[in-house]
Amino acid sequence: MSELKSMTAATAHRSPLHDFLAPDSIAIVGASADPTKRGYKAMVGLIRGNYRGRIYPINPRVPEILGVPTCATLDDVPGPIDLALICTPAVTLPGLLAECGRKGVKGAVILASGFRETGAEGAKLEQQVLDAARAGGVRIVGPNTSGMFNLHKNVNLLDLRNVRAGDIGFISQSGNMLLALVLEAEYNGQVGFSTYVGPGNQTDVGFNDYLRYLGEDEHTRVATLYVEGFRDGQRFLQAAREITPVKPVVVYKSGATELGKKAASSHTGALAGSYAMTVDLLRQVGVSVVHHSDEILPVAEGLALMQQARGRRIAVIADGGGQATITSDRLSEAGLELAELSAATRRRLAAILLPQASLVNPVDVAGSSDADPEVLARCMEIVADDDDVDAVFLVGMFGGYHTRFAESLLGGEMRAAESMIELARAAAKPLVVFSLYAPVKPPPLRRLHEAGLPVYASIEHAVKVLQALAERGLYLQDRHGRPLQAGVEPAEAMQAMFARAQNEGRDLYEYEAKTLLRTHGVAVAEEVVAHTADELAAAVAKFGQQALAMKVVSKDILHKSDAGGVKLNLIGEAALRAAFEQIMTSCRAYDADADLRGVLLTPMARKGTEVIVGVVRDPIFGPVLMFGLGGIFVEILEDVAFRAIPLSRRDAETMVEQLKGRKVLAGVRGEPAVDKTALVELLLRVSSIVSAYPQLSELDLNPVIAYPDGYAVVDARIITNRAVASN
Amino acid sequence: MSELKSMTAATAHRSPLHDFLAPDSIAIVGASADPTKRGYKAMVGLIRGNYRGRIYPINPRVPEILGVPTCATLDDVPGPIDLALICTPAVTLPGLLAECGRKGVKGAVILASGFRETGAEGAKLEQQVLDAARAGGVRIVGPNTSGMFNLHKNVNLLDLRNVRAGDIGFISQSGNMLLALVLEAEYNGQVGFSTYVGPGNQTDVGFNDYLRYLGEDEHTRVATLYVEGFRDGQRFLQAAREITPVKPVVVYKSGATELGKKAASSHTGALAGSYAMTVDLLRQVGVSVVHHSDEILPVAEGLALMQQARGRRIAVIADGGGQATITSDRLSEAGLELAELSAATRRRLAAILLPQASLVNPVDVAGSSDADPEVLARCMEIVADDDDVDAVFLVGMFGGYHTRFAESLLGGEMRAAESMIELARAAAKPLVVFSLYAPVKPPPLRRLHEAGLPVYASIEHAVKVLQALAERGLYLQDRHGRPLQAGVEPAEAMQAMFARAQNEGRDLYEYEAKTLLRTHGVAVAEEVVAHTADELAAAVAKFGQQALAMKVVSKDILHKSDAGGVKLNLIGEAALRAAFEQIMTSCRAYDADADLRGVLLTPMARKGTEVIVGVVRDPIFGPVLMFGLGGIFVEILEDVAFRAIPLSRRDAETMVEQLKGRKVLAGVRGEPAVDKTALVELLLRVSSIVSAYPQLSELDLNPVIAYPDGYAVVDARIITNRAVASN
Repeated sequence: MSELKSMTAATAHRSPLHDFLAPDSIAIVGASADPTKRGYKAMVGLIRGNYRGRIYPINPRVPEILGVPTCATLDDVPGPIDLALICTPAVTLPGLLAECGRKGVKGAVILASGFRETGAEGAKLEQQVLDAARAGGVRIVGPNTSGMFNLHKNVNLLDLRNVRAGDIGFISQSGNMLLALVLEAEYNGQVGFSTYVGPGNQTDVGFNDYLRYLGEDEHTRVATLYVEGFRDGQRFLQAAREITPVKPVVVYKSGATELGKKAASSHTGALAGSYAMTVDLLRQVGVSVVHHSDEILPVAEGLALMQQARGRRIAVIADGGGQATITSDRLSEAGLELAELSAATRRRLAAILLPQASLVNPVDVAGSSDADPEVLARCMEIVADDDDVDAVFLVGMFGGYHTRFAESLLGGEMRAAESMIELARAAAKPLVVFSLYAPVKPPPLRRLHEAGLPVYASIEHAVKVLQALAERGLYLQDRHGRPLQAGVEPAEAMQAMFARAQNEGRDLYEYEAKTLLRTHGVAVAEEVVAHTADELAAAVAKFGQQALAMKVVSKDILHKSDAGGVKLNLIGEAALRAAFEQIMTSCRAYDADADLRGVLLTPMARKGTEVIVGVVRDPIFGPVLMFGLGGIFVEILEDVAFRAIPLSRRDAETMVEQLKGRKVLAGVRGEPAVDKTALVELLLRVSSIVSAYPQLSELDLNPVIAYPDGYAVVDARIITNRAVASN
Repeated sequence: MSELKSMTAATAHRSPLHDFLAPDSIAIVGASADPTKRGYKAMVGLIRGNYRGRIYPINPRVPEILGVPTCATLDDVPGPIDLALICTPAVTLPGLLAECGRKGVKGAVILASGFRETGAEGAKLEQQVLDAARAGGVRIVGPNTSGMFNLHKNVNLLDLRNVRAGDIGFISQSGNMLLALVLEAEYNGQVGFSTYVGPGNQTDVGFNDYLRYLGEDEHTRVATLYVEGFRDGQRFLQAAREITPVKPVVVYKSGATELGKKAASSHTGALAGSYAMTVDLLRQVGVSVVHHSDEILPVAEGLALMQQARGRRIAVIADGGGQATITSDRLSEAGLELAELSAATRRRLAAILLPQASLVNPVDVAGSSDADPEVLARCMEIVADDDDVDAVFLVGMFGGYHTRFAESLLGGEMRAAESMIELARAAAKPLVVFSLYAPVKPPPLRRLHEAGLPVYASIEHAVKVLQALAERGLYLQDRHGRPLQAGVEPAEAMQAMFARAQNEGRDLYEYEAKTLLRTHGVAVAEEVVAHTADELAAAVAKFGQQALAMKVVSKDILHKSDAGGVKLNLIGEAALRAAFEQIMTSCRAYDADADLRGVLLTPMARKGTEVIVGVVRDPIFGPVLMFGLGGIFVEILEDVAFRAIPLSRRDAETMVEQLKGRKVLAGVRGEPAVDKTALVELLLRVSSIVSAYPQLSELDLNPVIAYPDGYAVVDARIITNRAVASN
């Protein structure tokens, strides 16, 4: 457990959400005396929760509700209102928001549904609500929200009992998921929550705003989010970049695709928008992504309570071989490693363990602790002291020795628990505890948990926690603070080239795309454009007897090979002339109206390893870079990595390392390894170019041939954004 | 829940293990009056457990233990002894086993360690124990076992309290894993165990024997095994083939590799022996393999209590959108499908649900059950009635409506629970229930569980149960009873060929391997062997102007390409002669002592899709067939499928379907689909050949080129087993 650091994110301005998510006065519009209504239940929640601010039930028909005098309208409220909970139907909302604005209400929580989610009419109504809110300076939670609570402020607008106040901030697009976590926490017995909000339609306040709020909130040690869909992913990534260095952020993202099916105009487009892309981008900014819903609470609790690990090297202390083996399997699957214990560490262990103990990690005490459970705590101290250990993982029966062996061992177990608590405070490494006895919560495990050392009932969940702690530690070391790649200085000639293409209502020609790349330092082979057969001589003059590739130049022909617009391995002017005629004939046959501007000639690329580099401007996350191995790796296995643009150097490096097929880049079947540094430079260069040219909508470099020395961009395609002006 | 069927496996002979795993008399050798000793604790376990058979403590030094009179030796016991629990040290064992034999003891449970696991001396002692046991007709559990219990016979030789008698039979190489499951079951509250055995060193009785016993045991509804290593995998597979049709078998296999690192003499050898291979073979014989330790109990309980599903089509009834989405994600990851509900089903649902409900699977009742939880049971009835639904999955708050909304809903929830129980009995489909409220066990969920409908606290675990039920259902339909491929009739000439190779201490030449394949109906291209340059004319006469491949024939050259022993695309006698000389020169330079027998000539294969077929004789599992796509799929991705030989046709078909790269076989990048039927025939043919020739030790067909019409075996390598006689 680290000292509780100052958890305030280093943002310039304090989030405006504090004004109403930690309100000193609450109006309940549609407050009701009917116990089945939300307008009644919210009042019960506030009164039972000992809310210390002012409560103003708004109801023109009854004089008081639960002993609190009502006001007929918001205007009649005698003091200022920080938060209005609005329980009335959708149609009342535009008028009510205008009223809120007049009254100076800071934020409104709108429960009603019947907006965008129901169709065009609802969307129109939602826009009216937003317009009224903006006009009056009122922020909106929802509409269509399950509500909110802030337990450290005793605000509970949900009809939810037995929720313990604690460290976990939670934003969830599913009310049931909140309920699931609350029930899990109730069973767990130690976990609690700080602020919950259901963002609903995110009409005004979105995930990025809530994340900033939780990042700043002193009562929140971990920001946890259940997300069905982001509305402004680009701003969310920006917020996460700022928050994750000071506070862990856990995201569970449901739904297999971010965008559903969309028409793909490029290879990259077809793969973008996937769940895999969202995960890559979230991890890029330091978010801990969990993939299973039953891992959300364990991982959030672990990150809230324990310090991050410096790395992936785990020391396992086990009191049984079986679970030691399972633990090794799971650690390896999670990308973690068994720390190699030093000779000194092994000597120290040998001194306190029986001869049959295994001193090679996973350490199996093999009965050494059966009569003295404190041996386990001593082993943990010893391995925690080893510089090559980043985290300590206790696996087995601890907490149950007094049940399993002899009642008299309870004292030793309690002392062991105290030693572990002390060690967790003193050591700069996390201690993670799995116990078979976790489900029955014996006193030693309760004591650990109360002291802030969570005890896990599943090896699998405990390993996910270790993984999150290690990844967070490595992120903070490796990635945080690395500068993001700056954009290049846009070239005047290139701006003019984009303008020409945009004016002509077309994408860039391949040679234009390559010119743009070459202008900004990307290695592209030399080439010649021949508009007529007579210009082919220039190519021969330039390239001599090198074998050349010839490709048609036409804005109307997207799939050049299909149109017969590509000829390869051409040597000498006669061959070039023959190929030119064939290409023109084929392409005319393919599309009689195609505007044929000649051919592009370039030397045949040497053999090497095919890779693909792509860019899309994702409607949710903005410009995204994709990198993968060519051919079946992309087409069959979808083995690609995504990063939001701009990238840091580390982002580019991890893209290459992340691929399942990375062994291919390291050299297989006797092939030499490719030049990874050059690929990293290429990725950074593309990032810089995309940052500088908003007119570039999509980019496909497919293939790029990677060599032991450098690379060659063989084909380049750039889709223009015709809506963006070129200066 | 299906009716409890007769669970007796259709084996010819009753397992001899019944004689001592359900004993009527137990001797405790090393019985002790010291409460810390196993010989005391076992007696406490028997007495406290109300064991109704005879207990004979063997101890020459005290007259009675816990009121039971002792005998000085086994010989002094007045009656027959079914089971001896032996608590004395390793060195006493050979003598004791001889004594057991004289006394007619049927089985001995040996707790002592200090045998094979400690080295050569221990292994020798273990062999002496086994020899003594065999001589006296005594079966051995262990040594180095954690012990056993049979709760339906009130036998508990473990010092383990609060274990509930029930349906789950468990064999575990880890005592801690037993403890973990017992504690989980204690928390679960409804699950119980029948027989537990720790197989220890499996010196005599192995997993296959225990599996047969559990298969026959009337108190066991599911056989569950935690396996660190099989000793006789081949017999285990045979036992599983017989048991799985009558009873579910669940295996958790720990350890990343079955064999550790072994020297690989072929491509197939390098990939065999992996965890992936073990999983494939277990699934081939109908075993439900779980990959995470926290899934063992949920899956075992689900398979014990619920009937299998007819297929993968799941109908989801949810009372919240969030969890419906999560459920869809997990079902799809598990290879399950959302059933397409018929128009009639949707009409019936519409009639009882609110207009905002989603009638497309996953069905979201969207508040329709908030005031009337019985609506959920009615929805389940309606979807269970749809022929296109194989299983029903209830997801959400059920059981907690009376806590969440109004206490008065408890009655409705209890009635809904009764309806679900009735539906589970009447419908021929499993109903699986996930509830947020499972951790707090409210009365409606307790009622379901008591009636044999388990309630899961994790969507992820519930989906694993659905997956196991669907896979079991499909196995029983598709695979069980399919005939296994019979061996071919061995050809005399081929036997002679193997004998020649064995006599010469070599593997088969490539042309011999191909001859064997061709003899037994595998499509292999025609070929000619030229021992001298003058014999090349025969190849020209035979193949005319076809381009040929030439490969050196030598027992001493394993890697022909490395030795310069391969030339491709040769046309005409002059080219052949030149290539012949080059090959001979290169190969002599490569290995001056190599026995060069000439060259093999065969037409160049047409282009197609490379696949690989291999065979190893695995030391644990016997002959195993491997199939994969060639190149990087095998080398980088290890995307291969394994099946034990002999295969059924369904086994061969599923090998092809299982590959991640199967899309390549279906045709990508404009390539046509390959002829899957021909590949299936090839796999079956190889299975037949391997069954017939024990002299064949390993086989590599790499590559085989698959075409839209048939395939061609381009290279074939067969390693001979020099220890097996060729008749």
